Amino acid sequence: METIRTTDLAGNIGQRVRLHGWLHQTRRMGGVNFVLLRDGYGIAQAVVADPAALAPLQGLGSETVINLEGRVVAEAQARGGVELHDPLVQVITPVADPLPFPINKPALTTTLDTLLDHAPLGLRHPAKRALFRVQAAIMTAFRATLDAAGFTEIQSPKLLATASESGASVFPVDYFGRRAFLAQSPQFYKQIMVGVFERVYEVGPVFRAEAHHTSRHVNEYVSLDAEMGFITDHTTIMTLLTEVLRGIMAHLGDRHAADLALLGATVPAVPEPIPQIRFQAAQTLIWQQTGEDCRGEPDLAPAHERTLGAWAAASHGSDFLFVTGYPMSKRPFYTQPDPADPAYSNSFDLLFRGTELVTGGQRLHRYPDYLAALAQAGLAPEPFAGYLEAMRYGMPPHGGFAIGLERFVQQLSGLSNIREATLFPRDSARLAP
Amino acid sequence: METIRTTDLAGNIGQRVRLHGWLHQTRRMGGVNFVLLRDGYGIAQAVVADPAALAPLQGLGSETVINLEGRVVAEAQARGGVELHDPLVQVITPVADPLPFPINKPALTTTLDTLLDHAPLGLRHPAKRALFRVQAAIMTAFRATLDAAGFTEIQSPKLLATASESGASVFPVDYFGRRAFLAQSPQFYKQIMVGVFERVYEVGPVFRAEAHHTSRHVNEYVSLDAEMGFITDHTTIMTLLTEVLRGIMAHLGDRHAADLALLGATVPAVPEPIPQIRFQAAQTLIWQQTGEDCRGEPDLAPAHERTLGAWAAASHGSDFLFVTGYPMSKRPFYTQPDPADPAYSNSFDLLFRGTELVTGGQRLHRYPDYLAALAQAGLAPEPFAGYLEAMRYGMPPHGGFAIGLERFVQQLSGLSNIREATLFPRDSARLAP
Repeated sequence: METIRTTDLAGNIGQRVRLHGWLHQTRRMGGVNFVLLRDGYGIAQAVVADPAALAPLQGLGSETVINLEGRVVAEAQARGGVELHDPLVQVITPVADPLPFPINKPALTTTLDTLLDHAPLGLRHPAKRALFRVQAAIMTAFRATLDAAGFTEIQSPKLLATASESGASVFPVDYFGRRAFLAQSPQFYKQIMVGVFERVYEVGPVFRAEAHHTSRHVNEYVSLDAEMGFITDHTTIMTLLTEVLRGIMAHLGDRHAADLALLGATVPAVPEPIPQIRFQAAQTLIWQQTGEDCRGEPDLAPAHERTLGAWAAASHGSDFLFVTGYPMSKRPFYTQPDPADPAYSNSFDLLFRGTELVTGGQRLHRYPDYLAALAQAGLAPEPFAGYLEAMRYGMPPHGGFAIGLERFVQQLSGLSNIREATLFPRDSARLAP
Repeated sequence: METIRTTDLAGNIGQRVRLHGWLHQTRRMGGVNFVLLRDGYGIAQAVVADPAALAPLQGLGSETVINLEGRVVAEAQARGGVELHDPLVQVITPVADPLPFPINKPALTTTLDTLLDHAPLGLRHPAKRALFRVQAAIMTAFRATLDAAGFTEIQSPKLLATASESGASVFPVDYFGRRAFLAQSPQFYKQIMVGVFERVYEVGPVFRAEAHHTSRHVNEYVSLDAEMGFITDHTTIMTLLTEVLRGIMAHLGDRHAADLALLGATVPAVPEPIPQIRFQAAQTLIWQQTGEDCRGEPDLAPAHERTLGAWAAASHGSDFLFVTGYPMSKRPFYTQPDPADPAYSNSFDLLFRGTELVTGGQRLHRYPDYLAALAQAGLAPEPFAGYLEAMRYGMPPHGGFAIGLERFVQQLSGLSNIREATLFPRDSARLAP
């Protein structure tokens, strides 16, 4: 007898089949025993008319790994409209130890710290699985959308000779007796690779050594990076990002409706175009809406972003809002200034439900501009030699963006802490499991 | 006028079009000037009847970024059967500096070190681009094959609290004043995640601190990892790997024939089944073939693998060979012993053209077996707490494999040094660019 998945039961009504998985739950209702089996894809219910069928589970608890044979019967009351009758249970791996918390209740009610301490178990909860299936789907759709647009995937090194991009907040590594640093982003490499492929993307880990402990930051996360050449300015990148978001949302809607339902999440509409507001206008708006005068400040605080998010929802019916033209003073040295107003930049942030999700913009592309920008920032050119070589030997106008994967899932699912959206989060207090 | 790609020229015969890209070459043949433009996808040739059309390029050199307009004309002698006539050149980014080496010759003849020092330029060479397009395609096909088989993608942390897997050869990181380590593989996490999704894969960087300097090793590389539950034994994994290789080769053959031709590479046939030989039989074979008696040694040396690769090609017509049943003494503690002969393991290596490309096998899955294996290896259980928790709360028989991406491309393309198959290689002497 071939083993099938729980999600294939409905196509096998009347057949006797075998499932494998974990003993999710046994329960007694109205004098009848039910066994719930969870495999990697879903949950199936078996009705145990004869208690002797449960004998192999004597003394064993939840998460025991089992084979479960039975006849597939249509039953409107059951999950997925089917259940197994006349079950036969066979133990593959016994589990006798009680779990530190149950993972078969609709919600995980344990504290976040306990949950993270026991992530190898907690991640088995159906809602956690749905979350990380959605995360995988976002990566898949990100790549598929960009593949279709002529992008090439790259994998850039994470070990760097210099703490180069901003000089701050990088982890030092002992590299054969010298100091190396962990990449805080693939920024330089994706720009270099625009010189090779025109359009590139990368999905991979980035490392930030900021010691802050907030609900929106972890010290290692997955960055979805794209970069493309031959752009007009940052608006070309905003159009590309909009297309990527539409690709992701279409994929989630088509393929992950059940996962999203389990998370109580809805796929946001991606307006075409996404509403946008200039940085200075955004500050004025915040002042008008809240009475707090942040005009003249070089960046937006999280509370400001929430105000803007609420405004975009109320006035444009949009979960997304582009804020454009951030001051040059807070952007990295490679940022392209706005030609019409060089104190501001050809850059943007994308807010998603009131939180910064994406940062992007146009980069400088002329070699002399890089030399001038480094001098202006007080940086020596030598540590940037490889990066500068790409600029020296011909780069088109280019730009790109980076999406934080965990924050995307956090906002999509309405989670209060990004650690809930991270498989095995890393912060200043946590390096395990 | 919309800009099109060089690869779209053949569909625009008779039209006037615009291309953009890099000035790959200008040459004078038989009194006529030719301009070759390279975009991210290919190369196009323009015939310059009127030398005045080249005036914008006066004083500028190769890699100048340009727009190139012209009328598309069918010409059997030209690349792709088309060329541009009546061209108009417009400079986007001028390049006046001479290149350190030419990138418009059929082969890059500069030394490897010079090439790596100038990777941002050297990677623009058409053959290098083809190589890394093939590398991207391998990742795409790896994921697509596993997605279709019900696998879920994961991204596991690269910062770990303990130098856990083997205790050797990991890079230490200064993590907020304490010591962390860079992951040498996602091994523990992919196993943990089998408890969640049954089948998982990961594509990402791994870090090995071995100071050796060989043509087959770099210190950071991309690992294509898969792991699945509910297997019979390691042969289930070998079947999966065979399916993945077939998926990759089919994709390369379908979509990257031109890239492979540029590399002088052929897509190997993946026999069904791939021939296999037991470790001990392989040692006997090596002894018979070479006179070198390596019987009793716990592992195969590179020369042994080459002998076995030649034997597989000669006797089975296969570029691939599974070697199974390696001694337990050289395998990590989580390896499942062969039940029939516990000094040997339910493991395999896959040789590709005489070099180890993949390592895989069945893992232990019972909690008591892990405790015993750690004790046997002289390892304390505490640093493995999270990993052990997955085993304690029910794991099915499982196993997996890991493919080294750069080595795959190296062997496929017949390159003598893995650094040629790595975008920005890292070794004990090289951390930049």
